Amino acid sequence: MEKALELIKKEIRDLLPYKVDETCCAIKLDANENPYPLPNELKEKVSKALSEVALNRYPDPYAGELKGLISRWLSIPEECLMLGNGSDELIQAILIATSWGSPTVIVPSPTFSMYKITGLAVGHRILEIPLDESFDIDPAAIIDACRRERAKVVFLSTPNNPTGNRFSDDKVLEVVKESHALVVVDEAYGDFSGKSLIPFLKENMNLIILRTLSKIGMAGLRVGIMAANPDLLNELDKVRLPYNINSLSQTAAAVVLNNMDAINGQIATIISERERVYRALKGLDGVTPYPSDANFILFKVRDADDLHKRLVEKGILIKNLNRAGRLENCMRVTVGTPAENDALLDAIKKF
Amino acid sequence: MEKALELIKKEIRDLLPYKVDETCCAIKLDANENPYPLPNELKEKVSKALSEVALNRYPDPYAGELKGLISRWLSIPEECLMLGNGSDELIQAILIATSWGSPTVIVPSPTFSMYKITGLAVGHRILEIPLDESFDIDPAAIIDACRRERAKVVFLSTPNNPTGNRFSDDKVLEVVKESHALVVVDEAYGDFSGKSLIPFLKENMNLIILRTLSKIGMAGLRVGIMAANPDLLNELDKVRLPYNINSLSQTAAAVVLNNMDAINGQIATIISERERVYRALKGLDGVTPYPSDANFILFKVRDADDLHKRLVEKGILIKNLNRAGRLENCMRVTVGTPAENDALLDAIKKF
Repeated sequence: MEKALELIKKEIRDLLPYKVDETCCAIKLDANENPYPLPNELKEKVSKALSEVALNRYPDPYAGELKGLISRWLSIPEECLMLGNGSDELIQAILIATSWGSPTVIVPSPTFSMYKITGLAVGHRILEIPLDESFDIDPAAIIDACRRERAKVVFLSTPNNPTGNRFSDDKVLEVVKESHALVVVDEAYGDFSGKSLIPFLKENMNLIILRTLSKIGMAGLRVGIMAANPDLLNELDKVRLPYNINSLSQTAAAVVLNNMDAINGQIATIISERERVYRALKGLDGVTPYPSDANFILFKVRDADDLHKRLVEKGILIKNLNRAGRLENCMRVTVGTPAENDALLDAIKKF
Repeated sequence: MEKALELIKKEIRDLLPYKVDETCCAIKLDANENPYPLPNELKEKVSKALSEVALNRYPDPYAGELKGLISRWLSIPEECLMLGNGSDELIQAILIATSWGSPTVIVPSPTFSMYKITGLAVGHRILEIPLDESFDIDPAAIIDACRRERAKVVFLSTPNNPTGNRFSDDKVLEVVKESHALVVVDEAYGDFSGKSLIPFLKENMNLIILRTLSKIGMAGLRVGIMAANPDLLNELDKVRLPYNINSLSQTAAAVVLNNMDAINGQIATIISERERVYRALKGLDGVTPYPSDANFILFKVRDADDLHKRLVEKGILIKNLNRAGRLENCMRVTVGTPAENDALLDAIKKF
């Protein structure tokens, strides 16, 4: 048996896998999901469409209809789009395509952990560059590191998970222009910021933008979106597995994208609740929330481990990020429905 | 722009991607799908379950219910199972986990092309060992190559795609015992052979078995199954993306697995039709079919390119495998419904 395990890459044997908190709580504010189900009328449309899918046939390998709808939704030409089984698969494809030589990936710190986990699994070295005092990137430090290490990829999640803020556009574009690396701007939370770097795709051949349907109400479908120039996309598409988006997800997502008014209303409510929760947290003694452009809020408390435990006892699950350094005693809460947010605020007030 | 493309691995820039034939035909016998939709009653159960899925929530990252049902179906303990977004993703995970040093993958030739395509994309060298006269493997040649090249992985598709036959169990087990590599026995078509190497998992720590729901009526769902010893699986699971099986596929597959009688009936019909089509092809002048344990038949004709063109004109799509060597003038036809099979046989007779 030891022999079989020895065939596995050391980097993977050493890897700590991505952990999903399986604590069961009535109020689930840990995973940056949209708290609202689809409106009934739209839900029925989706169900009807799903009931007509021929499950015995392979999915459309090019997800043509869905890609067309996403193209119109984001105003990105279809030939600049590739879809993934969640953005996770797109991140992995980028990392596989660039894992040659002594590949290095640059990420800010703190940021979304899957860049590092997938990078290590695929064979990259990871270099973390700390964010500045206001959680913005330090473009000079990133560009320096890129050149010194001949880094092939930089991941910039903006709005950044878990800090919630958008990085300054001019700083991100400076990295795009000066790094000589593929710069992956992950706008998973872009729908809650009202801003995007999509208009800069055309003139920057090393810019890749990721979007997703997961945060705006379709996390169960696993549809990630990658936008880049067609030549680059053509190469990345060779790493994509031929039937990577299943038929049911293609169908359900297409129905929702044809009815985006409902989703847009939910996004507006989430944004206004975010502002309300931020102000309320700010008014609490011993709680420091950080401004957010996303559907979650990072905040610091006196004892995050204790608060997390007490909230779970009350049936409220949020993400405890407490670890040494910038995130000491920090927690991340997803913006929920007004009632869920009230329950959270009440519970924090009590402790 | 050239600079951005230069960041992509040369092996990927040189790669010819997996091609899906998009020719539109009324009778589709090219993709080894189950030709039968779900029976109406079961279809309604699936639709009802799908209508209750909370699309705004992430899927169960461990696909617990589905894995439990697959465990009972295949008589494999749950801790020995990992699911993938189709077997494609599992093949990729194995290849990522073993891509270190100067990794080599051994595959028989001819076989399923994704082993080679994904292997090259992920950074492996591919060594192809020809099958013998009766399309069986040559275990001595494979074992020799494994030792000489210190190969990390061997892929053995049995029943083999596109030849249709199962390899001899004793030869496969000889490779498992002597190769010092991970031996991936891909039983994608195992349900049509009535045989499996699953009972040998326990005593062979380097044996990995792949199964799939794709060939038995659920190709649209993308659910691949990997079985191996728990220690090995634990490492491979680190490469798996956390939410790789979407909620709709988990739900639909669970309903079907709770109602396997319908599927088992379809499998029995496909097997009996396979034997009928084989005998009919054997009786045709200039047509040489090869015995099959799968849901498709490989056969040789005088001019495969011409026959393929004529069949498409008649609205029948089968796979043209014509290329120099063992597959010269060979074609692969999926076993369809009796009416589809009759249409194919009639059309071939006419030309």
